[in-house]
Amino acid sequence: MKIRFEGYEAKVRDSFGRQDLMKTIGAELVRVEPGELEIWAPVLDEVRQQHGFAHAAVSFALGDSAAGYAALSLMEEPDEVLTVEMKINLLAPAQGERLIAIGRVVRPGRRLMVTASEVWAETGGKRVQVAMLQGTMIPARPE
Amino acid sequence: MKIRFEGYEAKVRDSFGRQDLMKTIGAELVRVEPGELEIWAPVLDEVRQQHGFAHAAVSFALGDSAAGYAALSLMEEPDEVLTVEMKINLLAPAQGERLIAIGRVVRPGRRLMVTASEVWAETGGKRVQVAMLQGTMIPARPE
Amino acid sequence: MKIRFEGYEAKVRDSFGRQDLMKTIGAELVRVEPGELEIWAPVLDEVRQQHGFAHAAVSFALGDSAAGYAALSLMEEPDEVLTVEMKINLLAPAQGERLIAIGRVVRPGRRLMVTASEVWAETGGKRVQVAMLQGTMIPARPE
Amino acid sequence: MKIRFEGYEAKVRDSFGRQDLMKTIGAELVRVEPGELEIWAPVLDEVRQQHGFAHAAVSFALGDSAAGYAALSLMEEPDEVLTVEMKINLLAPAQGERLIAIGRVVRPGRRLMVTASEVWAETGGKRVQVAMLQGTMIPARPE
Repeated sequence: MKIRFEGYEAKVRDSFGRQDLMKTIGAELVRVEPGELEIWAPVLDEVRQQHGFAHAAVSFALGDSAAGYAALSLMEEPDEVLTVEMKINLLAPAQGERLIAIGRVVRPGRRLMVTASEVWAETGGKRVQVAMLQGTMIPARPE
Repeated sequence: MKIRFEGYEAKVRDSFGRQDLMKTIGAELVRVEPGELEIWAPVLDEVRQQHGFAHAAVSFALGDSAAGYAALSLMEEPDEVLTVEMKINLLAPAQGERLIAIGRVVRPGRRLMVTASEVWAETGGKRVQVAMLQGTMIPARPE
Repeated sequence: MKIRFEGYEAKVRDSFGRQDLMKTIGAELVRVEPGELEIWAPVLDEVRQQHGFAHAAVSFALGDSAAGYAALSLMEEPDEVLTVEMKINLLAPAQGERLIAIGRVVRPGRRLMVTASEVWAETGGKRVQVAMLQGTMIPARPE
Repeated sequence: MKIRFEGYEAKVRDSFGRQDLMKTIGAELVRVEPGELEIWAPVLDEVRQQHGFAHAAVSFALGDSAAGYAALSLMEEPDEVLTVEMKINLLAPAQGERLIAIGRVVRPGRRLMVTASEVWAETGGKRVQVAMLQGTMIPARPE
């Protein structure tokens, strides 16, 4: 997809590094390509729900961030990114060695970017899809 | 709405107490009624995004939990609750003294419960709506 | 809510009148207020699904149009309205004498309007909610 | 994906044939595979919105039906299918010679099936994606 700012990877990594929530849930940015991005996180004790799996909000956090930063990678230099809306369908319990979110831009408009994400749980090299997300991102200019 | 288990409040509070994520984000269950429920949380440093506001996943966590426990309050004694899907629209930055999520059951079916939540940010007694959520919950029997 | 164009009602009625789909499903615009709007339609034979109820797409059409025109009622004179995204939860079979969709704007931003709609089925003066919708509208300027 | 009823194709075609709305919008079932399905429709005058494109509800009708029948193709013999919820993101105006909806089952559970659909507009052999949908289907037994 068309890049509007050559320094997109450093910009995405810098913004991700300033998200305290990503540190709190142990998330790591493992791949940044134009319009596609991958985030990994362990299932920390701090993020469990009542049955011992990662809370749906963790799959949401990973899928939303993967989608948002995939969108940011295609935006112009001064733009930051905001989530307009996001829908998540939960497919299986979020348990295993790590959660893997892959976000991509489906439609890279100037006013709106439509995105899709998948979240997978990995155990012993085997992956099970735990969530799918579909949402909208907008560019925001800092004042 | 029709209660199927008289001990719903203790059951909801017990389940909420076992959600580690709720502790991590400082969330507190402040009101439990049949089919309607309220959760409060401060905007902790640990949950911020890159602009200093609470991450969208925090509004999601609060709204989803408020909806899920509103649904659980109407379920039968052995049932636990699972989120099938949830959609969030973000309305304003999540900043202020506290976030307040109010979840309610719109359609209390036996197979599926349809829910709606609002998330508000409160500062100096003034509330601004920051998110609205609409989603589906199902009862789950432990094996 | 704040009106940006005094002639909003005539503008909404004119645009609605140019939607051939609304004629095909027999829809009628019965109430236009700033940021809130009501559409009625019978359950025509032409729009049924395999069980004899109105197809989910009819509830969608009514709820989406009610939301979109509620948004248009708050936009500036030259703006038209486009649906960005819409989510529908179906609550009960769409059957009865008429379907009634009530759309309203929850957040009337300049770039984006967040909307909510309810669709009801009416029989003998009694109403049952058949759907709820939550979505995003944007203003579009004709070129 | 695992078939639970060998006669799935005839069952899907029979149910589709009883959807009056599909006739009204000129939709045709062109491909039925286990868990994946394709529907085509022209852009009839009767289904246009105020700008002359197919109404968003048409993309919804096609995407929802493609998803629903993809789900039905994996259900047991007596089951029928109901849409629980569906979310649509609109990507481009629905105009051209025909609309093509491709629905597939992402998670074929017994209680719930999670589905995804794409809707494309075709002109002169060239396809542009106009919508993407993500939703939930349930089996329903006739009484």
